[in-house]
Amino acid sequence: MKIAIGIEYHGAYFQGWQSQPNHRGVQDALEAAIAEVAGEAVRLHAAGRTDTGVHALMQVAHFETTAIRPQQAWVRGTNAHLPPWVRVLWAYGVSDDFHARFSARARSYQYVLYNHAVAPASQHGRVGWYHRPLAADAMQQAIQGLIGEHDFSAFRASECQASSPIRTMHDATVSQQGRYIIFSFRANAFLQHQIRNMVGALIYVGQGKLDVPAFSALLQQKDRTLSPPTFMPDGLYFTGVTYDEHWQLPVCEACWD
Amino acid sequence: MKIAIGIEYHGAYFQGWQSQPNHRGVQDALEAAIAEVAGEAVRLHAAGRTDTGVHALMQVAHFETTAIRPQQAWVRGTNAHLPPWVRVLWAYGVSDDFHARFSARARSYQYVLYNHAVAPASQHGRVGWYHRPLAADAMQQAIQGLIGEHDFSAFRASECQASSPIRTMHDATVSQQGRYIIFSFRANAFLQHQIRNMVGALIYVGQGKLDVPAFSALLQQKDRTLSPPTFMPDGLYFTGVTYDEHWQLPVCEACWD
Repeated sequence: MKIAIGIEYHGAYFQGWQSQPNHRGVQDALEAAIAEVAGEAVRLHAAGRTDTGVHALMQVAHFETTAIRPQQAWVRGTNAHLPPWVRVLWAYGVSDDFHARFSARARSYQYVLYNHAVAPASQHGRVGWYHRPLAADAMQQAIQGLIGEHDFSAFRASECQASSPIRTMHDATVSQQGRYIIFSFRANAFLQHQIRNMVGALIYVGQGKLDVPAFSALLQQKDRTLSPPTFMPDGLYFTGVTYDEHWQLPVCEACWD
Repeated sequence: MKIAIGIEYHGAYFQGWQSQPNHRGVQDALEAAIAEVAGEAVRLHAAGRTDTGVHALMQVAHFETTAIRPQQAWVRGTNAHLPPWVRVLWAYGVSDDFHARFSARARSYQYVLYNHAVAPASQHGRVGWYHRPLAADAMQQAIQGLIGEHDFSAFRASECQASSPIRTMHDATVSQQGRYIIFSFRANAFLQHQIRNMVGALIYVGQGKLDVPAFSALLQQKDRTLSPPTFMPDGLYFTGVTYDEHWQLPVCEACWD
């Protein structure tokens, strides 16, 4: 049996998605909890490997098992063995040729920035923060230049192990909700630290440190050393994965609120 | 000099507002940080003493000091000595006859309930949770019976030290935002655990375990032992204090988002 699961987690409690020698990866917690239900070890494969401090409202992963269980047992049974900051949202039997990572057509992320003079106490760890007013309209203009197929080397971490820096950005928008500025991205895939690096540069645009043509030039120059620093992980949410309809997975998009 | 301050905090990091022998009260953290700025010990008096796990988006407190500092020093200087889950939002010099607690005309609270089959992982500690669908319309009907002057003994903790169980509820509403149900209350003052006890009973109404007349009867019977149990603190936010306009304090209402 191959089972796909939808997962929500608070990234501040983990050292990223991937298994860690100290077992502090989200994957470690989930594999241990699922093994309790399956009665055997399982290996999870996720659509996206989030960094330390990055949250997921809708991560998708799959595992194989010889155990036969009702779908609700994979949800409730697994959740009974997890700490409260990670939850399985749904489980769904899929055919053998499904792969959470390789079948994914697109990934969606949102970056939530609290834009206020005083840092966010009650939202500590859940939002990024910038203390001075930002020009959302300039950021909205700049972000549109990211749409399409580009070499994103300007926003790629030096440790990134992807074989190519070329990605296709389907959507990229900036919206304002009171004191929050929300950056939304949807692409076929993302490079390591790509969103935090793009958000760092967009915040320079919002401050007036970079104008829109200078932001576009950054992308063209393909040189990470010319770009502003990586922004904090606290505000980054993995919000969904797009799969072809024939997999019949439950709706795989969530939204920060 | 008497200084009033507005304060935001994440309640899960503290053992309530009040000073504790182990210094884990919000008051302890703030008094220590303000003392660093003032160069002398200070004693804070707050508008409302929140319990362990209860948050504040806008607590108001005052202190007296011989130190003369610009208002921004009380904000930024104090924040520099605080952990990130508590922040001073503003500081304002007030006349000697102001008292954060005794001058308050009304207090506002919101209770945020996540109403979904799976517990809230990314909002862990920030919202209450109930796993089955709730009838918001029945709860909205029931909550209206709380408006006005009443003896709230039915919803009063046995340890409550208030001299009278009579309070005046100015507003009480239920609203739904997607998966969230938000209970909003404004009263001259609240008894210990009053909101968590009222929310516990309202959730019984939402489940159909209590109908609207039975909910009204609870209030009339004035007997805590007949009421449903106290609901978890996680979703409770102190959102503001109303003072007479002549104190000219900055706007003292906030909203959960």
